[in-house]
Amino acid sequence: MVGQSSSNFYSDNPDLAWYLERGIDWAPLVELTEFLHKAPDAFTDAGEAKDAYRDVLSLIGELAGEVLAPRAAEIDRLGVRLEGGEGTVSAPFAEVFEQLGALELHGLCLPRELGGQNCPLTVFFLASELLARADLSAMTHFSFHGPMAMAMLAYSWAEGSTDFDPATGSITKTRFAVAIDEIRRGAAWGAMDITEPDAGSDMAALRTTGTLGADGVWRLNGQKIFITSGHGKYHFVIARTEQPGDPDDPFAGLGGLSMFLARAYEDGPEGRKRYVTIDRLEEKLGHHGSPTASLMFEDTPAELVGQRGEGFKLMLTLMNGARVGVGFEGVGVCEAALRLARAYAAERRSMGKTIDRHEMIADYLDEMEADLLGLRALGVQCAVEVELAQKGGIVLNTGLVTDPEERQRRERDMKRHGARARRLTPLFKYLASEQAVHMARMAIQIHGGVGYTKEYGAEKLLRDALVLPIYEGTSQIQSLMVMKDTLTGVMKDPRRFATRVAQARWRATTARDPLERRVARLQGLARSAEQHLLTRTVADKGRQVVGEPLSAWGRHLKGKWDPKRDFAYAMLHAERLTRLLADEAVAELLLAQVRQDPARRSILERYLERAEPRARHLYERITTTGQRLLETLGHEGESERKVG
Amino acid sequence: MVGQSSSNFYSDNPDLAWYLERGIDWAPLVELTEFLHKAPDAFTDAGEAKDAYRDVLSLIGELAGEVLAPRAAEIDRLGVRLEGGEGTVSAPFAEVFEQLGALELHGLCLPRELGGQNCPLTVFFLASELLARADLSAMTHFSFHGPMAMAMLAYSWAEGSTDFDPATGSITKTRFAVAIDEIRRGAAWGAMDITEPDAGSDMAALRTTGTLGADGVWRLNGQKIFITSGHGKYHFVIARTEQPGDPDDPFAGLGGLSMFLARAYEDGPEGRKRYVTIDRLEEKLGHHGSPTASLMFEDTPAELVGQRGEGFKLMLTLMNGARVGVGFEGVGVCEAALRLARAYAAERRSMGKTIDRHEMIADYLDEMEADLLGLRALGVQCAVEVELAQKGGIVLNTGLVTDPEERQRRERDMKRHGARARRLTPLFKYLASEQAVHMARMAIQIHGGVGYTKEYGAEKLLRDALVLPIYEGTSQIQSLMVMKDTLTGVMKDPRRFATRVAQARWRATTARDPLERRVARLQGLARSAEQHLLTRTVADKGRQVVGEPLSAWGRHLKGKWDPKRDFAYAMLHAERLTRLLADEAVAELLLAQVRQDPARRSILERYLERAEPRARHLYERITTTGQRLLETLGHEGESERKVG
Repeated sequence: MVGQSSSNFYSDNPDLAWYLERGIDWAPLVELTEFLHKAPDAFTDAGEAKDAYRDVLSLIGELAGEVLAPRAAEIDRLGVRLEGGEGTVSAPFAEVFEQLGALELHGLCLPRELGGQNCPLTVFFLASELLARADLSAMTHFSFHGPMAMAMLAYSWAEGSTDFDPATGSITKTRFAVAIDEIRRGAAWGAMDITEPDAGSDMAALRTTGTLGADGVWRLNGQKIFITSGHGKYHFVIARTEQPGDPDDPFAGLGGLSMFLARAYEDGPEGRKRYVTIDRLEEKLGHHGSPTASLMFEDTPAELVGQRGEGFKLMLTLMNGARVGVGFEGVGVCEAALRLARAYAAERRSMGKTIDRHEMIADYLDEMEADLLGLRALGVQCAVEVELAQKGGIVLNTGLVTDPEERQRRERDMKRHGARARRLTPLFKYLASEQAVHMARMAIQIHGGVGYTKEYGAEKLLRDALVLPIYEGTSQIQSLMVMKDTLTGVMKDPRRFATRVAQARWRATTARDPLERRVARLQGLARSAEQHLLTRTVADKGRQVVGEPLSAWGRHLKGKWDPKRDFAYAMLHAERLTRLLADEAVAELLLAQVRQDPARRSILERYLERAEPRARHLYERITTTGQRLLETLGHEGESERKVG
Repeated sequence: MVGQSSSNFYSDNPDLAWYLERGIDWAPLVELTEFLHKAPDAFTDAGEAKDAYRDVLSLIGELAGEVLAPRAAEIDRLGVRLEGGEGTVSAPFAEVFEQLGALELHGLCLPRELGGQNCPLTVFFLASELLARADLSAMTHFSFHGPMAMAMLAYSWAEGSTDFDPATGSITKTRFAVAIDEIRRGAAWGAMDITEPDAGSDMAALRTTGTLGADGVWRLNGQKIFITSGHGKYHFVIARTEQPGDPDDPFAGLGGLSMFLARAYEDGPEGRKRYVTIDRLEEKLGHHGSPTASLMFEDTPAELVGQRGEGFKLMLTLMNGARVGVGFEGVGVCEAALRLARAYAAERRSMGKTIDRHEMIADYLDEMEADLLGLRALGVQCAVEVELAQKGGIVLNTGLVTDPEERQRRERDMKRHGARARRLTPLFKYLASEQAVHMARMAIQIHGGVGYTKEYGAEKLLRDALVLPIYEGTSQIQSLMVMKDTLTGVMKDPRRFATRVAQARWRATTARDPLERRVARLQGLARSAEQHLLTRTVADKGRQVVGEPLSAWGRHLKGKWDPKRDFAYAMLHAERLTRLLADEAVAELLLAQVRQDPARRSILERYLERAEPRARHLYERITTTGQRLLETLGHEGESERKVG
């Protein structure tokens, strides 16, 4: 593939290396991952750990560049097949997974005592970008290996079925050890079975049942569709174990869901015995190496994970990690699209010069690069926050921390990182998915006629990219999450919001660095957009806040708010708010990088150049449009005319 | 296909019918098409003509809905093949063309004396939308039939090889009568052979040669690629007949190009004799029913069309018509995407209601519909202007108009329509192509998971749509044309520009109708953007206009301007300017419709709701960004710092 001629996707990428070498503060990640340096063979310091992480990323970068990328077109062409009831992948796809297995990469993040390399999740996420740049479908399938073993471990830890010895810093027993080991060896992998024919994003509508038999065995019945890598052995299945309460409340159903781990089959001396039937594999637009299965559960035996009724909560945990992974898949697609487009534009001549010297093409490439650099900043921070929150919680569960003050400090840290992870994850999943689609389309367009043919790889990138804004929660679901979290956050603590507004205003005029003033103005615009949405929301409930200072809003925000019913206006603008908040988050992170390394200054400048007018545009759309449409949907609040 | 269940794509479309019944002033079109009502069997008035046009559109609408649409998925799946040196299409594709032929639709616009139905081109363009809504690749192939016969007639008319009898209002002789008749009968079709391996948009780089032999026969040698419907018999070929002048001037080559008509083969008693070899058919992302051929010319005999060296000019005429056609293909894709998305959203339930009641989805659908209605307004006006200009010129060539005053009036009309056609065509081609891609992508997204599968038709729409911004001149080429025409127009007549600025300003404050004021403000913003680009352009030449009234700019604009060298800043913003001017044109046309029919008011309101903030955003991008990048490209003008 043109533009992919480099043999190591890590070492040809200075921006990625910057994060490893400078951008990421590895010390707290290493400390938690190595169980306060008590884990077996723990790294003694972050420097030593970093050397190891660099090595592993370079290894994966080479595999991505030399093994996977050259097979990507063939993987796309050959796809997958359902034969004799089993999903089978193509030979080149299988070859890639043989090598991933031979390099023991499925155990990348598993503790050493479970046969793994005990790398931080953040290293896995950086590796995701490398592999996704080579082939998205292979990366996706890879992500249903190690991360699924890690999920088994995490669930077991949470429910108390994992024993940890603080003295040796190691796990001595864990409930799913057999499955984890199979996955580590590359002999199996897991899947997440949520979606059903009439329930996509709407989990309350799920109908698959889990029934506890007189023999003490849970059995699953129902159909699951669109199951990525669903041709494998291990399945986390969400099923209904309790009947829904109020039949008129469409959300009552969430409390009746439980999480199960089911084996789709078992291999014995008489061959394979199947408990789950693969009805079919989807014919998809792209993402051809990755099987997407339709599964039938008929009295499939399964183990309950956690408590009855905890299914929705447990699934969210799993999905949140998966969303960060999808974000990095998007980063990889963006990197591939930019390189493909740039390489072609540097070679193709028109009107007496190469087309990368044509102003419009140069502008596209410049914007793609700035957006990619900004996106990666968001992704890396998101990964780090997710990991610090998750591992902070695990460490508190180990008995390693006994000092009450230290426990308190660590709990505060964990919560702080958790809140940040919750803020950044949907922003990253949204932005990375949408940018991947956009950049892949631009790569086609920059290629012109040849971009539309199968020969140059640009069209494959777009076909693959288009799954990203759909799976693991659509862009629309991410946007609704962002909007709801934002608005309910302000409602819970309007004083804090007022302080943030005042701070942004202050820094926008007083900060010494003009870039800091610009970022503060962007923050101010984001707060204004939020305030507008909140004002409208409160007004739609018949409460009047216009003209009152923010700090006095508290009494208007009391009481029960139902986002589904009360946030109509904000829901209409949820995607625009999300884009605005994503730009804000990127700008903040790039500004923090500038303080650390002045060489990063031009990245922020280039990002702001486009983000500032975009933010004003989004703000204008949020504050001036939507009312007409809401009236046609019958959502108009009583007090609307007074606010308008 | 879901959402395509209606059986007549004309009668289910009230907006399209509005144009036939009210929106289009048929009288002047009928007058010119019927050679001032002297053509054989001419309609006596526009009302009678309209009845006939309605019938033919309803016929095509039925064929689109009942014959083509049900075969679209199969056409996409089966594609085309190169067998025994011939391009072959699939059975369902061939069936559709049998029916198109049986209904004599290849002669839709041909004069009656040539066996046609003498419909206006505008009727053909409306029909294009109907067929493209059903299947883009079939519509594209259809457009290489009748329009190619019309092009043969038009070229012959222009070079003086067509005889017309004013007394009977009919053509008595025309040079390409045999070919025209073959095409009319559906026995052949034409292609436009421009692109070569190293020359896409850059025609000056073309290398195929035309050589006049001692036997008086021209022979062609060279390779042409990406030739849509290039597996057919007749080929308009652009070839070099003269050597380029200045070897350093990349545009000198255009003057050395001539236009030829070549037969790829002839069928005789001993079978088919080929003069053009089909090297291969491209494997494309979509558009699978339409063969895209790579052709080899080796001493292929050909007839010179027009004069030596006129090739570039003649090709532009052909391409301009083709661009309007592509625009209508885009409208058809948008219509299909909107209907597909709307039908799915009205059925799919989530969170207790159908998803079209979810605010974000409702907003997408509402915006898609408003954009589609605006786009169609632009397309219809563009079609009418193109036709009035072209046929106005033909009628002046017939000897039908002898009165000098009437000739003068008709010449003025023709020029006025020609100028409008030139303005609207690239705006329409650009907007329709980009909107088709956007709406097809939204259709996938609204479908969620099933949108990514092959089952629901949304992914096919996007794969097909992505060719539109590439063929017949990329979106970037359209943008450059818009920018150059706009800037050179202002430079030629700065006083007229100043008047337009003043008029927009005046109407923005004084017009009685608030919608007219809003449209005037949009126009004012467009003029300000143009003025900014012009100011920068002039300043980059070292001339200072800032602070001087527009009306006094004349002396700064004198002299020779080379868009390639002098318009760098404007080139960088060409696409943004194009989007802004397209919105302006749509708003103007919708406003004119409101005056004619107050029921159209809400369409303009809905369009402006999104266009206004977008225009401000584009204006801001145009006026605040780009300088940094231009500096890296080394384009900075000496006087830049004084202007910045």
